[in-house]
Amino acid sequence: MTDLTEKFALIGVENAPGQESRQQAENLEYRGEILTGTPVDFSHGDVDAHEPTPGALEAFQAGFARGGPQAYTEYRGGGHTRNDVAAKLADFTGAAIDPDSELIITPGTQGALFLAMGALVAHGDKVAVVEPDYFANHKLTVFFGGEIVPIPMDFMKTDRNSGLDLVALENAFKSGVKLFLFSNPNNPTGVIYSDREIKQIASLAARYDVALIVDELYSRQIFDGRPYTHLAALADKPDTLITILGPSKTESLSGFRLGAAFGSAHIIDRMERLQAIVSLRAGGYNQQVLDTWFREPLGWMDKRISAHQAIRDRLVKTIMAVDGVEARTTEGGSYLFIRLPRMDVSMADFVKIVRRLAGVAVTPGTEFGPGFTDWFRINFSQDHEAAVAAMERLLTVFERYRSQ
Amino acid sequence: MTDLTEKFALIGVENAPGQESRQQAENLEYRGEILTGTPVDFSHGDVDAHEPTPGALEAFQAGFARGGPQAYTEYRGGGHTRNDVAAKLADFTGAAIDPDSELIITPGTQGALFLAMGALVAHGDKVAVVEPDYFANHKLTVFFGGEIVPIPMDFMKTDRNSGLDLVALENAFKSGVKLFLFSNPNNPTGVIYSDREIKQIASLAARYDVALIVDELYSRQIFDGRPYTHLAALADKPDTLITILGPSKTESLSGFRLGAAFGSAHIIDRMERLQAIVSLRAGGYNQQVLDTWFREPLGWMDKRISAHQAIRDRLVKTIMAVDGVEARTTEGGSYLFIRLPRMDVSMADFVKIVRRLAGVAVTPGTEFGPGFTDWFRINFSQDHEAAVAAMERLLTVFERYRSQ
Repeated sequence: MTDLTEKFALIGVENAPGQESRQQAENLEYRGEILTGTPVDFSHGDVDAHEPTPGALEAFQAGFARGGPQAYTEYRGGGHTRNDVAAKLADFTGAAIDPDSELIITPGTQGALFLAMGALVAHGDKVAVVEPDYFANHKLTVFFGGEIVPIPMDFMKTDRNSGLDLVALENAFKSGVKLFLFSNPNNPTGVIYSDREIKQIASLAARYDVALIVDELYSRQIFDGRPYTHLAALADKPDTLITILGPSKTESLSGFRLGAAFGSAHIIDRMERLQAIVSLRAGGYNQQVLDTWFREPLGWMDKRISAHQAIRDRLVKTIMAVDGVEARTTEGGSYLFIRLPRMDVSMADFVKIVRRLAGVAVTPGTEFGPGFTDWFRINFSQDHEAAVAAMERLLTVFERYRSQ
Repeated sequence: MTDLTEKFALIGVENAPGQESRQQAENLEYRGEILTGTPVDFSHGDVDAHEPTPGALEAFQAGFARGGPQAYTEYRGGGHTRNDVAAKLADFTGAAIDPDSELIITPGTQGALFLAMGALVAHGDKVAVVEPDYFANHKLTVFFGGEIVPIPMDFMKTDRNSGLDLVALENAFKSGVKLFLFSNPNNPTGVIYSDREIKQIASLAARYDVALIVDELYSRQIFDGRPYTHLAALADKPDTLITILGPSKTESLSGFRLGAAFGSAHIIDRMERLQAIVSLRAGGYNQQVLDTWFREPLGWMDKRISAHQAIRDRLVKTIMAVDGVEARTTEGGSYLFIRLPRMDVSMADFVKIVRRLAGVAVTPGTEFGPGFTDWFRINFSQDHEAAVAAMERLLTVFERYRSQ
């Protein structure tokens, strides 16, 4: 089983967000005292600081009360849930969605991404992946035997667009790429693709017959009133397109494991076949929680977005005060991707050091692309004051390791 | 993507339990009147007739109240849940289980089975599969590119053992099979493997270095006080062994999507890596429900088992009264596999006919092995009287199609 040994070596989870407690202790050089303060786990959002949408638990209870029909839905999700979610997502994105054939309810957006990749990637297929982008994109391609074609995104060049290299993308499509997947807003940078970029991606995919997976997980949390283009709503788009959304992030419903994918019926059909052998369905009672999605109390979503925008502003100000530290201000979502000047230790070691000396967990940039050795990602959906204090501790520790 | 087109054609869900509503209407010959009565869906258990274990919903609420740490557990499941479940499963099975390295909490036992297969089956590997056995075994092998080596089980020959062809099994192992997976009690027949059979399987697997996956989903619901041997507790067993259990069946907790797998640490590690890209984790709040597992109120489990034994007895009596109908009396679990004498229509058509004429859903035998064209499976975890009446209606419809 050498084949599997190699494959699983390539999809390790030691540095993945939330897995830090399983890291082995190592001989690291700890400089200076431990800095005390409220520990902050920036590897994912804090659903205690930003609570789940009101009514979520009650909706679960209502699902439980519905009993059998809710426990055993179709693999693609219960009919009443699909009708409701299809209407809401059509309204949100501007795309037409048939609830019977073009939508599947999944165990989180991770579940949606896995099913979409499994439905689209055959052994040896070329898959275009943005660098940087969500770390699972790389691992999923490896797992399904695909070959990664990296597409650079020069996100520090301008703030008028994402900086995706569209020439490289077209060359990749010309070279036989079957699938292009990307997150918008981008994970880890929080960059939003411009209207022109989205239209060019759609048009290129249509021209070269490339399938698209667009991960719009954070598309409800857009800052500064920036424009956002849903690719699925465009007339000029490829035949094979899957869009992914879910309530795990802005809505803080991650603990319910719910997501949704919509798009090309032939791919949704494959995704259901795969779901039947992967985990049957999203938790039956859990599905009822989607009833609350896009039905938040009046003003609730605005308040949540502005609370996050305020945290972003404080953190950006905090890091920009430090000589040589770089980041592009987050445009959507709760991620901030930060570059540190040269240190005496590697970023991999710094991440471990800062956890011990500052009580702060962050995700190393190399999870998002092999070249991001000077970068780390934070999810700033945290208690506002605790997050700022934690970042200050991290930067204090950084100075102890800054190369002279 | 011809490769994927073929693969997904082989893992269809049209005839899978619970998917009947998606079947296309066809031109079938309907003989006689519709028989009225309470509709019964024998394709899965009825959690309204046999309710979830007491305290399950309250445990979920407690998980929700725990907030962040419960929403974002490690991918393999929360530490306190793993400690608790490992101790309970060790006590139940007699196997030693390290909660840190030898156990993973999964989204249902289907989730566990998918992860175990993904961790063990490489492209081209030979996989030994019992015929009949759980339909997903076949589909999972196909999905991961394995080659199926069928092992016949002559379950109608005797009731002293399962009737598994151990000579065929050893020949398969000699021929290079990498993995053998089987359910005990067997799905769809409800047959329990004898102590001698389990010991021989373990010993053969150890001798030929074959990995084992043992699906013990229904092992808490054993009838007539029959002995049951947990392979994991044997001294003479292979290096690579995964045992799967969960609370979806006897405990009626399927709507929470919870399962567990324990065994060889190197495979549990792979399963966690895979889970990280499949759906991250079993629903965080849901995991708390495992706290109630193996802690049912005194007498509750005995009562549940005897209620099912009583339904089994009535149904076996009902079908045996019909000339030519065959079945082996269920020894564990809630399935009964039934053979009908020759009909004027195929079993595939009869299943559709009986749904319309009798309001009864059953699963065709060919889902469990290509040779079972005269068989169908029922899950008799139903309302007692409704189940008996539904079976009588089915048998009445059968007589309209019996070949003369």
